[in-house]
Amino acid sequence: MTHIAFIGLGNMGLPMVENLLKAHHALTVFDVDSDAVEKAVARGALAAPSNQEASAGAEMVITMLPNGNIVRRVYEETGGLFDIVAPETLLIDCSTIASADAVALANKARERNLFMLDAPVSGGTRGAQDATLSFMVGGDTAAVKRARPILLAMGKAIFHLGANGSGQLAKICNNMMCAILMAGTAEVLALGVCNGLDPRMLTEIMRKSTGNNFALEHWNPWPGIDEGAPASRGFAGGFQVGLMIKDLGLAAEIARTGKAAIPIGATAQNVFQLHALGRTENSVLDMSSIQRLYYPGLTG
Amino acid sequence: MTHIAFIGLGNMGLPMVENLLKAHHALTVFDVDSDAVEKAVARGALAAPSNQEASAGAEMVITMLPNGNIVRRVYEETGGLFDIVAPETLLIDCSTIASADAVALANKARERNLFMLDAPVSGGTRGAQDATLSFMVGGDTAAVKRARPILLAMGKAIFHLGANGSGQLAKICNNMMCAILMAGTAEVLALGVCNGLDPRMLTEIMRKSTGNNFALEHWNPWPGIDEGAPASRGFAGGFQVGLMIKDLGLAAEIARTGKAAIPIGATAQNVFQLHALGRTENSVLDMSSIQRLYYPGLTG
Amino acid sequence: MTHIAFIGLGNMGLPMVENLLKAHHALTVFDVDSDAVEKAVARGALAAPSNQEASAGAEMVITMLPNGNIVRRVYEETGGLFDIVAPETLLIDCSTIASADAVALANKARERNLFMLDAPVSGGTRGAQDATLSFMVGGDTAAVKRARPILLAMGKAIFHLGANGSGQLAKICNNMMCAILMAGTAEVLALGVCNGLDPRMLTEIMRKSTGNNFALEHWNPWPGIDEGAPASRGFAGGFQVGLMIKDLGLAAEIARTGKAAIPIGATAQNVFQLHALGRTENSVLDMSSIQRLYYPGLTG
Amino acid sequence: MTHIAFIGLGNMGLPMVENLLKAHHALTVFDVDSDAVEKAVARGALAAPSNQEASAGAEMVITMLPNGNIVRRVYEETGGLFDIVAPETLLIDCSTIASADAVALANKARERNLFMLDAPVSGGTRGAQDATLSFMVGGDTAAVKRARPILLAMGKAIFHLGANGSGQLAKICNNMMCAILMAGTAEVLALGVCNGLDPRMLTEIMRKSTGNNFALEHWNPWPGIDEGAPASRGFAGGFQVGLMIKDLGLAAEIARTGKAAIPIGATAQNVFQLHALGRTENSVLDMSSIQRLYYPGLTG
Repeated sequence: MTHIAFIGLGNMGLPMVENLLKAHHALTVFDVDSDAVEKAVARGALAAPSNQEASAGAEMVITMLPNGNIVRRVYEETGGLFDIVAPETLLIDCSTIASADAVALANKARERNLFMLDAPVSGGTRGAQDATLSFMVGGDTAAVKRARPILLAMGKAIFHLGANGSGQLAKICNNMMCAILMAGTAEVLALGVCNGLDPRMLTEIMRKSTGNNFALEHWNPWPGIDEGAPASRGFAGGFQVGLMIKDLGLAAEIARTGKAAIPIGATAQNVFQLHALGRTENSVLDMSSIQRLYYPGLTG
Repeated sequence: MTHIAFIGLGNMGLPMVENLLKAHHALTVFDVDSDAVEKAVARGALAAPSNQEASAGAEMVITMLPNGNIVRRVYEETGGLFDIVAPETLLIDCSTIASADAVALANKARERNLFMLDAPVSGGTRGAQDATLSFMVGGDTAAVKRARPILLAMGKAIFHLGANGSGQLAKICNNMMCAILMAGTAEVLALGVCNGLDPRMLTEIMRKSTGNNFALEHWNPWPGIDEGAPASRGFAGGFQVGLMIKDLGLAAEIARTGKAAIPIGATAQNVFQLHALGRTENSVLDMSSIQRLYYPGLTG
Repeated sequence: MTHIAFIGLGNMGLPMVENLLKAHHALTVFDVDSDAVEKAVARGALAAPSNQEASAGAEMVITMLPNGNIVRRVYEETGGLFDIVAPETLLIDCSTIASADAVALANKARERNLFMLDAPVSGGTRGAQDATLSFMVGGDTAAVKRARPILLAMGKAIFHLGANGSGQLAKICNNMMCAILMAGTAEVLALGVCNGLDPRMLTEIMRKSTGNNFALEHWNPWPGIDEGAPASRGFAGGFQVGLMIKDLGLAAEIARTGKAAIPIGATAQNVFQLHALGRTENSVLDMSSIQRLYYPGLTG
Repeated sequence: MTHIAFIGLGNMGLPMVENLLKAHHALTVFDVDSDAVEKAVARGALAAPSNQEASAGAEMVITMLPNGNIVRRVYEETGGLFDIVAPETLLIDCSTIASADAVALANKARERNLFMLDAPVSGGTRGAQDATLSFMVGGDTAAVKRARPILLAMGKAIFHLGANGSGQLAKICNNMMCAILMAGTAEVLALGVCNGLDPRMLTEIMRKSTGNNFALEHWNPWPGIDEGAPASRGFAGGFQVGLMIKDLGLAAEIARTGKAAIPIGATAQNVFQLHALGRTENSVLDMSSIQRLYYPGLTG
């Protein structure tokens, strides 16, 4: 049993806490949303009134927060986690943030004799509930070893990519790929429909051919093809356009620093940005709503 | 048993003929390559000295040729197939050509009281050998019905998309999707490597996540990851860059006529074109060699 | 004095006819629009009831028509110009059409012992009125020599680029450049405004710097900066989005046949296509209305 | 007469110092390059052994440095300019850096009761020599007023765009426009040449038409057309590819923060990046060398 502080009880964080509790760890939690805290308490967690009080005395701290600015504030502010946790505490940030931010945090942690990992996840809320998440981990091998049993209580695969920041790099690479798949699939479906093809049959053909991809198969952007997909419920839920634009911005940033060329990723980024520009409400729709940019008359 | 003329005995045509022979059809064949003709004869086909003599008296003619110009010449030249086959002959073109060419040919066939289908395939040489091809078919329902048993001797799935030309439309849509997957995957792998990630682990992560796609899984462009992929044998074999550029040109053409926007497909087209421009020999490499544009130092 | 038939009396053709009349040539004209014909007659032209009757007996025929399909029909249809003009007649097509169409027409003309030039123009309606057009001419030197005095009655510069079709190639190249300038300028102005800059001051700075270009200077896409520009009158008049999309399609076509890479031109093409997709009425606005795609809230 | 410290005596800084000396100001200068310092001393400047000693006691400090990291270090390091200049000193940074860096510096200056302006320039080394630079200025009106006579000794136009950072915004917008013009022009010239046109005649036509732009006219990327352009001397000198990639990265950054879509600018960025990837030495060539990406066989 490990005493773990868990900061951030959103759609991902809450089920992750539940899985840690099932594995008999002692959890102290904090979130600004008191409803989420209550739910965690109902499953056996202890509530704390602040990040700091949740973390005081914990052997490990796990953060699962919306963006890099929030993550950096929680750790770095005066009286923040870096100032109050005990030496040798293991800090695991599961949020998706810029790789450079992860590196900067890890450097500050090291100066304070703390251990820090970046460990963003893939698998979505479903993976969080089923404890089937994949963790993309950056940091020292010793810290990864220490984190392993805890991470495996929440997921099933751990990829240790290298030094701090490399977990975030892998996450950003995957999300850029995902954006290309989604925008590309929406583009091809519209191309077919504009030429008179049935999007359902075109989907079926490409699924069995060299055009198959995750978006086509599990996240189809054309309404009515996948009953369970956001496209079939007005593009609600899922992964918001605004968040994908943020991640594509992070991809552009690592392309710049790594001197890599990303003509297709950058085009996808701007296609999503044009979509968000067109109507403000688009930013909060699922990213498969990009189908509407390519086929404006689309209903559903 | 049907008397079938088969024109074009390349890597695809020859195994298709073999499967028709296994299904006990009578085949008369022609190709400019006499070695290929000999192989077909060894399996039981009858050789003819020309397209026309192969087709005279056949109930059906199947063509499997490299490009639209050749297809049009075979059918349309003076004394060509249109001039010499009997009324009501069923003509099935399995080549990948422009949709507009398929429509033009079908219109001329109709004027001559012939039946014509465009039926390009997916599944590659493997599918041709195993009789597991998929046919994307455009044309009248009656003609499709008549073709069905013959096509099923060579494949396992028939998609009837609509009027003449629609089979070609579906094929072009799929190939544009395939080009986006390949260029996008090569781009993301190079982005990771330029930032210090291991391409093998990045591949493994994306295969299990929202970035998964056909290129990543079955046609990995980074040398050494898939032992069986063209990337692991110097980008030899596979689907040539020059042919993909041709197909992306066909996609641009139907985007124009269908008034569809294809910013990502067009970027992929130009990325492949830049690759082919850089060194002439690139045109005949497998299209996964696009990896070298993104990461010029690449060996293997 | 030369006896000239002039087919096509639109915004460009009519003033071109007037300038030929001023130079004391004998003009017989035809257009489907009888108002335009009346105006030409009022200036001294002779009206004919058809293309053919206008052209019968003419030493030269000049066509100025909306697109390649119409041009080809006028020349090639049974009983069309190719069938009825006298041997050695000089045919000058000033329309903007595909280079391949121009080549095909010239080949047919040659077979009939006719002389043909493609001679698309730049300079707009203003240039047509002032006889300051530039002609981009493709065809044989002897024919160009014969055409020279006639063209100089309508313009001030003749560029002989080479064989038939090369005039159209130059025109398409220029128009692709123009599209890049317009979309690029609109993009940069929106980038500035989204970051709080004043578009008028940004225009003024770039005009005096390395960003200066024709669109910025003479066709500013931001409403209110150039009083005389279409942007300042609701994007009415000017050069329609739909026509620019057509020309960018011709550019994509010659990129394909010439094996050239046009990543920026293709992106511009798709940006204009997304603009036209968004709202149908956009197609008939001036192409500077692309500013609205980049900054949807734009009024004016 | 004002006592001015000038930090950074490169190709721009040195002639700017000379013009300030001509206007009878007292200059104390510093650069790591002692040759440059000697030249400034020969014109009448006083040499100092460090930034700090140059700036101590100055009424104004002007910095003209290669990038944002250097600028920030000079001002912000312990014992740097912020620590040692007298209250109310006017600090003018003429370097091209990120707008966010300019804002951060200005905020720190304000806390110390210093005045700071971002004032990047356009006009190149020629403008610096002739005192015809344009200054794009961000900062408080009072500070701009105080800077005006000093700036006018080095240039002829001052654009005050708004608050701190806005000078940098305008500069970045202009440079993105410039990159689009250069890459677009190189693309169009290669498109013409691939189709058999003469690049010189195509240039001449577009200069007189709607395709005219700064790159075409004053910086032609095709060797031999402009005798004075870098293209005609092996692409040496001029504005380096690597610097343009840096500026396009800054443009991507302000697109992200300003929520603007830049599909064409981003494509240009990646075209230049592909060019730099292809051969390492390309990074230090003039940016018009992008012509070689589009037409690899190019000599000259």
